[in-house]
This record gives sequence, structure tokens and C-alpha cells, in this order.
Amino acid sequence: MAGITLYYFDLYARGELIRMIFTYHGVEFTDHRVAFAEWPELSASGLAEFGNLPVLEIDGLKLVESRSIARYLCQKFGYYPSDFTDIYWVESVCDLKEDIFTAVAKAIWTKDPETIAKVYSEDIPWWLQKIEARLIRNNGGDGWFVGNSITRADFEIFELLWDGLLRPGLNEKFGGLLMATPKLDAFVKRFLETSQRLRDYLESRPKCDF
Amino acid sequence: MAGITLYYFDLYARGELIRMIFTYHGVEFTDHRVAFAEWPELSASGLAEFGNLPVLEIDGLKLVESRSIARYLCQKFGYYPSDFTDIYWVESVCDLKEDIFTAVAKAIWTKDPETIAKVYSEDIPWWLQKIEARLIRNNGGDGWFVGNSITRADFEIFELLWDGLLRPGLNEKFGGLLMATPKLDAFVKRFLETSQRLRDYLESRPKCDF
Repeated sequence: MAGITLYYFDLYARGELIRMIFTYHGVEFTDHRVAFAEWPELSASGLAEFGNLPVLEIDGLKLVESRSIARYLCQKFGYYPSDFTDIYWVESVCDLKEDIFTAVAKAIWTKDPETIAKVYSEDIPWWLQKIEARLIRNNGGDGWFVGNSITRADFEIFELLWDGLLRPGLNEKFGGLLMATPKLDAFVKRFLETSQRLRDYLESRPKCDF
Repeated sequence: MAGITLYYFDLYARGELIRMIFTYHGVEFTDHRVAFAEWPELSASGLAEFGNLPVLEIDGLKLVESRSIARYLCQKFGYYPSDFTDIYWVESVCDLKEDIFTAVAKAIWTKDPETIAKVYSEDIPWWLQKIEARLIRNNGGDGWFVGNSITRADFEIFELLWDGLLRPGLNEKFGGLLMATPKLDAFVKRFLETSQRLRDYLESRPKCDF
């Protein structure tokens, strides 16, 4: 699998999940972090089929759309179910993650402290309960989101919780939110336990604000 | 397949694709159009797992998230590929549809005539070219988006083009935009040709603004 290159900005945002999947699965890739100054020329080159990053060069293709890239990798690496009801359980919780990502980004961009405070005091606790209920649906919440092994749903929700609430710098402010959803809190720890590579990466990765 | 009920507002928006898939496949369902006055009580009932419509009751489940619902139905009814590269081709053009839907809705909500005019004069023609290029990638653009039969991608793009540009009331203003992408224009006609039921439905369905 030589010649894998991820093109994305020096941000977590829509690129970090892809980096985590490669890291977790132990696949080497070139993490091309596009400087904002470099983007106009790269954009003009036609690299990005639909005009946006991330783009992933892999298997002779230039994949676009972050969620389709993540699905492709999870299918390729065996982190995706085959039954269509199980696929629904995976995909719909990933859609909820997308809803949350969009809503939180929108609130932050208002720069209105009240709007932002409401998201963290009301909306996020509500969403965490919904996500935990999904976890509990399967094996009482003591395993993974769907079936008996890690799927895209586990990667997506881990990334949401880690990069959104629990990473160093945020954990001090927001980590307490997970206290009301102990099964979800335990899930994050359990997921981390499965991969020394991921733990090492999270210690050493470039620091980004967003 | 008794007892299928779609709960959605009296809008096209995030419900119409689901209605079209059922209609196309010839599956009877109860199209429960939720009045805005009815929504608070229905919402409080816990019907909608993640707080939003549409919800689809089917197979003993209450499915949520419109895109996961559409994928589930397409898999159930045979409009979805099995190879993960083909799945990527389907899903990524559906993601582009979602990007377009979000961007157009955002522009319309600004109520700023200049912003809205720019979307129709610049952005939509650009997107149409990208979508047509995808169509041309497969069988020279004279068939379907992926493989040799209709998939979720064809449903999604047909619905985008029909409800967004070509339906009566819009066609007079926006239908001309398709002149620059003749393969896409022919695709819409070809898709309609495959289903008398869909043509009848589009003639008789409730009229919605959005």
C-alpha cells in the first residue's frame, strides 16, 4: 500500500478521523498538511474533485468527501458490518456526529458567549445521553456500538469525544460532561486500551485548536 | 411489509427522497405529514430518537437520520452496490448533494438577493459540471452513476435536480441551467422513463415550496 497521501489542512476537523484510522490500523501514509498559502495553487491544480479538502490518494484514486473516505477505509480494513441493519446502526450514529459537529461549529462561529455556553450546558449533555443510549443498546454498553468488534461508529464517536471534549486543553473544561454518561466515559478508555499506536499518536501528534 | 409509516413535515426537504424510493419500488407506506402544531406533542412522545424528523417505522424499527434511512431502503430494495469502491462512488456524490443542499439552504435563509443570485449563477453551474463529470465517468454518461443499474446515487441526484431545479414552478426559472450539462439533462429524462409510478406521483403529489 505504497503511495498513500492525505491532503488536508493543519487541523483536526475533517481530517483527524482519517489519520486515526490509518494510525490504528498501522498503515503508513504521507500526512500532507496543506498550508493556507499553498491552497490556492493546489486548488487550481484540480486535485480536489469537488473543490474541498480532505483528498486521499489511495489505490490509484483521489478520494474526496471526508465521510466517504472514512467509510472506504473502514470497509477496506474490516471495520464495517455487512448486514444492512447493522450498517444502519453504524451510519445513523455517524450522522448524529455530523449533526453535532455542524451545530457546535455554527455556535462557535457566532462568537456569542451565550450561544456557545448553551451548546455546552444543554445540547451536548443531551447528545451524549443519546449516544450513550445507542452504546447501551448493544451488549449493555460494555462493548462496541455495533456487533462484537470495532466499526466505523466506534472510530467516529471516539474521535468526536476525544477531539471535542477530552483532549489535553479541553479535558479540564469539558471532561466533566462525561460524568453523566459513565458507559460512554468507559467506552473512550476501552477504545484507547485497544491500541498502543493510537495512544502514542495522541501523545505526539501536532497540536491544533480545531 | 405492512405497517410502514414515514413521519415527516409537509415538505420535500429531507423527506421527499424517501417517498420517491418507496413510490419507485412500488411499496405502500403511510405518509404521515406532521403539522407544525402536532410536532411538540409528537416530539415529547420520544418518537424521534435524535430529536428530528424524518422517522421511518419499518421492520420493527424506528429509523432516524434521512441519509441513513435512504441507504437502508436502497440496500433493502437492491439499489446499492456491494463492492466498496463502487460504494465510494455512490456515497461521495450523495455527500456532494448534501453539501449543495446545505449551501443553497444557507444562502436562501440569508434572504439577501445578491447571495442567492450568486448561488444560482455561479455555484450551481459549477456543481452541475462536477456531477455530470461523475456521470460521464461511468459508461460515458449514457447510463447510471455507478455500475449498470440504478443505485442510491441516481435516486439522490434525480431528487436534487427535480426538486431543486426542474419541478413545475422552478423549471421556468432554473431549468435552463441544465443546458450546459446535456448528459445530466438526459439522465433526468432517462430516470423518469424507467418508472410510470414515479411520473404519476410527481404529477399528483402535494405541492410544497421547499
